[in-house]
Amino acid sequence: MEKATRRQSKDHNSRLVLKTIYGNGQVSRADLARSTGLTRPTVSAIVAGLLESALVSEIGPGPSAGGKRPTLLAINDDGRHLIAVDLSGDEFRAARLNLSGGITTRVGLPAAGLRGDAALDAVYRLVEPLLTPTATPLLGFGVATPGLVDPQQGIVRRAVNLGWVDLPLRERLEERFGRPVHVANDSHMAALAEYTYGDPPPSANLIAIRIGRGIGAGVILGGRPFYGDGFGAGEIGHVVVDPAGDLCTCGNRGCLETTSSVRAILKNAAAADRTGSVLAGDSVPTWPAFIQAVKAHDPVAVDVAVAAGRHLGAAVAHLVGAYNIHHIVLAGRVSDLGGLLLDAVNAEMHQRVLPAMAEATTVRFTSLADGRLADIVTLGCSALLLHRELGVV
Amino acid sequence: MEKATRRQSKDHNSRLVLKTIYGNGQVSRADLARSTGLTRPTVSAIVAGLLESALVSEIGPGPSAGGKRPTLLAINDDGRHLIAVDLSGDEFRAARLNLSGGITTRVGLPAAGLRGDAALDAVYRLVEPLLTPTATPLLGFGVATPGLVDPQQGIVRRAVNLGWVDLPLRERLEERFGRPVHVANDSHMAALAEYTYGDPPPSANLIAIRIGRGIGAGVILGGRPFYGDGFGAGEIGHVVVDPAGDLCTCGNRGCLETTSSVRAILKNAAAADRTGSVLAGDSVPTWPAFIQAVKAHDPVAVDVAVAAGRHLGAAVAHLVGAYNIHHIVLAGRVSDLGGLLLDAVNAEMHQRVLPAMAEATTVRFTSLADGRLADIVTLGCSALLLHRELGVV
Repeated sequence: MEKATRRQSKDHNSRLVLKTIYGNGQVSRADLARSTGLTRPTVSAIVAGLLESALVSEIGPGPSAGGKRPTLLAINDDGRHLIAVDLSGDEFRAARLNLSGGITTRVGLPAAGLRGDAALDAVYRLVEPLLTPTATPLLGFGVATPGLVDPQQGIVRRAVNLGWVDLPLRERLEERFGRPVHVANDSHMAALAEYTYGDPPPSANLIAIRIGRGIGAGVILGGRPFYGDGFGAGEIGHVVVDPAGDLCTCGNRGCLETTSSVRAILKNAAAADRTGSVLAGDSVPTWPAFIQAVKAHDPVAVDVAVAAGRHLGAAVAHLVGAYNIHHIVLAGRVSDLGGLLLDAVNAEMHQRVLPAMAEATTVRFTSLADGRLADIVTLGCSALLLHRELGVV
Repeated sequence: MEKATRRQSKDHNSRLVLKTIYGNGQVSRADLARSTGLTRPTVSAIVAGLLESALVSEIGPGPSAGGKRPTLLAINDDGRHLIAVDLSGDEFRAARLNLSGGITTRVGLPAAGLRGDAALDAVYRLVEPLLTPTATPLLGFGVATPGLVDPQQGIVRRAVNLGWVDLPLRERLEERFGRPVHVANDSHMAALAEYTYGDPPPSANLIAIRIGRGIGAGVILGGRPFYGDGFGAGEIGHVVVDPAGDLCTCGNRGCLETTSSVRAILKNAAAADRTGSVLAGDSVPTWPAFIQAVKAHDPVAVDVAVAAGRHLGAAVAHLVGAYNIHHIVLAGRVSDLGGLLLDAVNAEMHQRVLPAMAEATTVRFTSLADGRLADIVTLGCSALLLHRELGVV
């Protein structure tokens, strides 16, 4: 009992020191003792262990505070690598990352229409090329899928597009690859990425809405993802915003996904009277063509984009009324629509929510750099894995 | 420093013992030692203090576990009294309660149209009759107001109907009455009452929607009220559900309050073609007359009630998508509409949310006994005060 307690306390202290180094960048052992409240000998012993396990490295002497110059410590970015897997799109994507979330390798696999075991096989094939022997140990896997995912048990409760029901994805992957696996919903992970790697919100709460092929939101409360009783918190893509709207794959009519997803926008553009539009023609326009039309102020394209933004704004209004979280972030391919979309979302939200609450709410695009937009889910998986395995974020 | 730590630890242990007695009803000192993990002498010393302060009393011998029969302890219901104040209606209401939430005295004061200082004066006058000297000390006040209320600082940020902006209500009342005051939003307190005194939900999460003159929801996450960044979490009464609807006091059009509050229902009944209805006539029907008409299956009344329920169901669908909390409770005067309302809410919610999530969600009326329905906010104020002052709920 005493022994177990001492071991727990040692683990706790070791995590605390690692987290402090992670959060501060470059620190001396004396800095660590000051900010953790641990004694110098305890800190030195813990740091020795972290150096030995290659999670931390000595990066050279720091500025002197009068006496001898202290040795600075930092996270050894390449002391471990991580594999993040994003199953949310028509292309399954995986990436190898270092400990600070830097992506070193990317792979992809076309997966449109794959369901059930075929989809699971595709995940195995996707990851395989990343398993080549490397100089650094693999910390584990972070995997994001659409649908209702139990992140504690690692079970995909229901992912309609992938045909998965109660799939023990963590167990399957751990059996196959022999390393720790953490599984979560894609939108929840996008929110975690924004919270962990984006501009810090003024409070510990944040909502991120991802709009691409599908639409989903992730909610961060007190710095951690909020999953809901059935792991469906933020599942706004299948809440109806237009009762007279199109039939949705879920069986209802007029879900947000039928008005404001990329697919819905292109479908609505194709259905519009395109006489005189740069989009004139018989076929459904491509996304790049549609974006180009919006940027050229083509009235048909602009109308369709604004309508999508208005419906999204209505859904945002309900989120504001439900959570009163001041910080709402949009991510995903619709970001290409820029200010036009933001303006439409904000205008509709302001018309639909208590003025004092609307004024206090900021809706903006993700603060993660443009080039990383498509990686937002990947970065969230990395953050989840770092939190669960090392306690550092 | 050492002394402060010992005192904190003593306070903590004392709260733990009191909470254990509160939660278990009747316990012996041996039971307390077992369930708190404290030593027998520590428990005995704490219990002596609690007996002396009259928070706990000895209620007689319990069953023997072999040896001497132990003395059972219980909360001394009348060891303190509490004053709860509900400013959410046209009548301000206050009640005196004992430590287990039993209401012993009620007072009320007509307050329709009172604003600003006049409303505050009315609160003073309301409470005065409850301040007559009593045998038991006053623990403090729990006060609920509509609007955006900062429960940490005790400031009413904005209560439109009362004309209060940034009113330091806690400070004002503490100065006047010299006892601790806790202030919160009325719907948040209704949710806390349901969580504390109602049927326990299967998880620590719950949403309560109160529908009377106004409409608001309170959200319990992990057993505590969730307030949101601006104290407006659950402020669904002013989210638009019918963009073509009536102008609302908030300035927007078609808020949930304009479709489903008691006032809106009566207004819609008056505006309907009442030929052949028991509600026929020129005047706006009263609520009891309307309820009677619904119970007599009057088609006009039924149509109006179902329409109100349908709009409420749309708002509930958005709450389900946002939180995925399985346990949703309705309270307030619309409860008089019974199953007709529940059916309409459920039907609409099922049409507007992911089927798997709709099926997992239960919408029902508050489990607090019928006679206590009007007291749900009062009970919530009591629970807040007991939590903040004694740590027992």
